[in-house]
Amino acid sequence: MMTEIDINPELDLVLERVVDVPRDLIWTAWTDADQLKQWFVPKPWGVADCRIDVRPGGEFTTVMRSPEGEEFPSSGCFLEVIENERLVFTSALLPGFRPTAKASNDHELPFTAFILLEAEGTGTRYRAIAVHGEAESKKTHEDMGFHSGWGAALDQMVEMIESER
Amino acid sequence: MMTEIDINPELDLVLERVVDVPRDLIWTAWTDADQLKQWFVPKPWGVADCRIDVRPGGEFTTVMRSPEGEEFPSSGCFLEVIENERLVFTSALLPGFRPTAKASNDHELPFTAFILLEAEGTGTRYRAIAVHGEAESKKTHEDMGFHSGWGAALDQMVEMIESER
Repeated sequence: MMTEIDINPELDLVLERVVDVPRDLIWTAWTDADQLKQWFVPKPWGVADCRIDVRPGGEFTTVMRSPEGEEFPSSGCFLEVIENERLVFTSALLPGFRPTAKASNDHELPFTAFILLEAEGTGTRYRAIAVHGEAESKKTHEDMGFHSGWGAALDQMVEMIESER
Repeated sequence: MMTEIDINPELDLVLERVVDVPRDLIWTAWTDADQLKQWFVPKPWGVADCRIDVRPGGEFTTVMRSPEGEEFPSSGCFLEVIENERLVFTSALLPGFRPTAKASNDHELPFTAFILLEAEGTGTRYRAIAVHGEAESKKTHEDMGFHSGWGAALDQMVEMIESER
């Protein structure tokens, strides 16, 4: 049985869009490191490195690179992996489900992301939900540009998929 | 594929014992709330309440009760559920994989527990591994009596199972 998602508007952020690409190609874009590097971060930022071990407890690490070349690594792990349907990962646990150190928690934003894919016509209903532990984290994430950032990344993903078809 | 467990002696605590009860009965003792209440906390402490929703992201809440009647609730969620083999849960995520609030992190001990069961003769090789994010958490857990506490709880579990056979 899949985890029910109990969205709390005080704590969570939701991006929902219907895009005209099939969900198996979106799944690959999320789970193939070479593909993810191409779209995951809105330009002119980019992804310097990416490690994806797509199974519960497996590593999900990305290193974002600023236009000036500064790198920002972020490491987490996958929680649920249901091909073409649901990908869940968190920044609150390191690979192997290890809790993050408290010291690092002060600088990072702990959240769990649900990526949910449903077939809709020839396309896909795409939902990205960021689940936080407190309103402050939600606000920080929102102020960092959750909606525009995840939306622009999705645009880049669709563009990548369409350019390869 | 199951998560490999990468034990780090600087960060992790391990209890390993061979007990003379079959592993399916140990599995039930861990996953049936009425049974868990009977053994999970060494006497004269006890379990006032327990909620178990045994699936990834499902709730695992226990309320410990001191001999004086003071109650200490603790809430987490399950991460991996492989019947009769492996039960993984964490205190670093609430039910639904929601990160804990930072404020509560200051008072609680974030760890992930792996309960691993292997058939050995007519009994079971029982391993309980507590995985932490930093050495300080490991030490706190050790000082709280991890080995004696989890060992005494296991004794109570075996006693409960044998009394019901």
